[in-house]
Amino acid sequence: MTHSFPVSPWAPLRQSGISLADQLSEHFSERIRNHGLRAGMRLPSVRAMAKEARLSRFTVVQAYDRLVAQGLVQSRRGAGFYVCPPSSVAALPAVNSTLAPGAAFDTAFLLRSMFRDGAPQDMPGGAGLLPPAWLDEEMVSAAVRSVGRSIGRSMLSYGVPHGLRALRQQIASGLQAQDVPAHPDHHLMTVAGVTHGLDLIVRLVVRPGDTVLVEDPGWFLIFGRLTALGARVVGVPRLADGPDVAALARLAETHRPKLFILNTAVHNPTGHTLSAGIAYEVLRIAERHDFLLVEDDTYADFHPGGPVRLAALDRLNRVMLVGGYSKTLAASLRVGYVAGAPAMIEKLVDLKLLGGLTTPELGEQVVCRILVEGQYRRHVERLRARVDQARDKCIKNLLAMECSIAHEPHAGMFVWVDCGVDTEALARKAAALGVLFAPGVLFSPRQAPSSHLRIAVSMVDNRHDWKVLENLLQASRRHPDT
Amino acid sequence: MTHSFPVSPWAPLRQSGISLADQLSEHFSERIRNHGLRAGMRLPSVRAMAKEARLSRFTVVQAYDRLVAQGLVQSRRGAGFYVCPPSSVAALPAVNSTLAPGAAFDTAFLLRSMFRDGAPQDMPGGAGLLPPAWLDEEMVSAAVRSVGRSIGRSMLSYGVPHGLRALRQQIASGLQAQDVPAHPDHHLMTVAGVTHGLDLIVRLVVRPGDTVLVEDPGWFLIFGRLTALGARVVGVPRLADGPDVAALARLAETHRPKLFILNTAVHNPTGHTLSAGIAYEVLRIAERHDFLLVEDDTYADFHPGGPVRLAALDRLNRVMLVGGYSKTLAASLRVGYVAGAPAMIEKLVDLKLLGGLTTPELGEQVVCRILVEGQYRRHVERLRARVDQARDKCIKNLLAMECSIAHEPHAGMFVWVDCGVDTEALARKAAALGVLFAPGVLFSPRQAPSSHLRIAVSMVDNRHDWKVLENLLQASRRHPDT
Repeated sequence: MTHSFPVSPWAPLRQSGISLADQLSEHFSERIRNHGLRAGMRLPSVRAMAKEARLSRFTVVQAYDRLVAQGLVQSRRGAGFYVCPPSSVAALPAVNSTLAPGAAFDTAFLLRSMFRDGAPQDMPGGAGLLPPAWLDEEMVSAAVRSVGRSIGRSMLSYGVPHGLRALRQQIASGLQAQDVPAHPDHHLMTVAGVTHGLDLIVRLVVRPGDTVLVEDPGWFLIFGRLTALGARVVGVPRLADGPDVAALARLAETHRPKLFILNTAVHNPTGHTLSAGIAYEVLRIAERHDFLLVEDDTYADFHPGGPVRLAALDRLNRVMLVGGYSKTLAASLRVGYVAGAPAMIEKLVDLKLLGGLTTPELGEQVVCRILVEGQYRRHVERLRARVDQARDKCIKNLLAMECSIAHEPHAGMFVWVDCGVDTEALARKAAALGVLFAPGVLFSPRQAPSSHLRIAVSMVDNRHDWKVLENLLQASRRHPDT
Repeated sequence: MTHSFPVSPWAPLRQSGISLADQLSEHFSERIRNHGLRAGMRLPSVRAMAKEARLSRFTVVQAYDRLVAQGLVQSRRGAGFYVCPPSSVAALPAVNSTLAPGAAFDTAFLLRSMFRDGAPQDMPGGAGLLPPAWLDEEMVSAAVRSVGRSIGRSMLSYGVPHGLRALRQQIASGLQAQDVPAHPDHHLMTVAGVTHGLDLIVRLVVRPGDTVLVEDPGWFLIFGRLTALGARVVGVPRLADGPDVAALARLAETHRPKLFILNTAVHNPTGHTLSAGIAYEVLRIAERHDFLLVEDDTYADFHPGGPVRLAALDRLNRVMLVGGYSKTLAASLRVGYVAGAPAMIEKLVDLKLLGGLTTPELGEQVVCRILVEGQYRRHVERLRARVDQARDKCIKNLLAMECSIAHEPHAGMFVWVDCGVDTEALARKAAALGVLFAPGVLFSPRQAPSSHLRIAVSMVDNRHDWKVLENLLQASRRHPDT
């Protein structure tokens, strides 16, 4: 039977760089998809196929295993390999992620677009990430390989609830150097990125009807998360040296908030950093009105010096600090941490376990490796220099287009620019041209119309996007009503 | 200045197997910790140190970088490396995770114990994982290294919201082979393990006051999660061939549930699998009373044949199927998936993004690599044989101790055994002896006292634990009131 089986015209290409097993499985899968081999037909036995094709049996088994994994072939114990019936799953129309003419330019749309094809380099204006070419692919790859060489048995089970001990040790050292008194066993837990950390905190602390203070402008993702929890989201105006403390005191008095979430260093979207005096005031107001503070540290590594830390002043009492490595190393690693009071960390760890058990250890091992080797600091310094240069160039471009920037940022990957026209309309027109800008309305907790735009510095050398922006600005200024 | 610096008595051990950079950084860190080097002192310049110790400058820079990473030394740009002030973080007492005499033997305690030191091999009776020695460490390591060799730029940004496309393709093939019509782009998303998938589903569907049906006995983690959400948790008795459908119909009528969560194949803790007839009845009742079904597939790979799938009968209409690789590959990878109706998957993806952005791609790449290579199926077959053998031996041991098993399980890593005495008291005494058993009360949604115990088959060769069980059983039977 095996000799009558139509194996030819397959012949191995021994120098092709593709493994023989891959070539053989590809040969069969093509024939199955073209209906050259029909459902129920038996593949040649491993022995016969090996002889026929002058391959080792091991190679044939490998090839057959791949066909089974693809669902094209099934193995019947002791009886050989058979072609499966064709899949009954009809292809559905592709998901459409472009903005419909009447649809809202909302958080959900921007979130989905941000992640479309995982390729932020295609949409520099709106993206919250630096282009992969600016990051250090080889450093991350080398760390992954190094982790792969030393995987112990512990990796096969769940990690510890608080997260990889060695990584917490590294994070604690870094925080201690900034005067944040974080003990690796008591004040720290790992999370799957800053967003996960914020999510755990708000789920622990906030009940429907509670008020949470955020910054205005501020990071829009958290507005959506809080609203979904039934919280009342109230914005505190953000000035160049931090939140407007007079407004903060008034809002705290009126609303009795549970929590205030803020970017202290390198604020998103403005790029500004809290001054020491404002930090002190914020803590006093929080103490007087007894609310918690969340210091969102997503962008702090872009700060050149030692920014003032609420968590250092307060000694991790009512302040929780949330940080991570998505912006500087690799976003898909999803590694971050929360530092806070031991009692709070214990509750957050319980919530983390209930909601998904431990965080994945592989990424934590990779980040730990990079931190231990001491490469991270140098990498961040190089990255910061590049970002600073790009930002300066973007600011020049924007000023040349007669946009205005109230206080020029000294750090970070964004420029928050006043275009003098409604930016939601502008962003909508840009989206129709395939260019994604983040309009000011997204950063407003009240979704107030805005003439601001958040420009990502990764756009710096993208002439096409600058041209689109320039044309749209000119058109909007000529015909402000369209 | 550099020559007066006390570098001696350090001398490199060139054949020691420890890198020179590590040796040098260890030398300095020891001196700093012993206060041989005090805060503010400058380390020798890289050039001087390299000359003094006959090392390359690169090695010295590496060593200094590690000291900076440890927080012992800081680098001042252009001015060299200086010893940091000692950390002001006092060591706190160690976290105590043993059970206090009066404390509840509850979900939180068992969860924390499960993960203590990440070492389930130390507590086979209670553990929800197989011993690492039964799994395939080398297969996972090789996949990690292979991923490390081919990391593309896409890994540096966020992955796609639905999860790695190639992995979804593999999962879809596997599901299609079981007649579950899952299209990789429309019916599938990745999650960070089954628990994460269940968490997303209940957060999407359940509001405070809603009723959710679970199995009795059933997996305790989900009871805790539902209670935390303010849901009313109602148990449906589990019989050998599936849920008690008469009770299910009655409870559905009375409580108007939103959702019924069940293990269809290889139920935890009993090891039983749903029959086709009961599957049909469950679907009809769900349709009549319009509630959703969640098919928790955690243990399905331990089933030897093709178990009946609710998701196949219902064609992913009102059934969501949640599965993962924690039990068979490596729990710390945290890779799982949800299959469901496209509209439901879209909402779950939005919730996943809001709660933590994308899932980590590294683990998904590793699992994908293993599935593509076709090694997974063989590995699971080997694992199943080992588990089946161990389970048979455990059952014999238990019967010899005059325990009874109503219906012997034919698959899976647990034995649900009736000990004839209150198992909470027994588990408490065992815990005091350092042996962790999972008493029946944990698996009861009503926390009803129980004479059942869930024995993990990984205990099979652990004489000490069997002896503890035997002694406690004899003592309890002699003095049933203590």
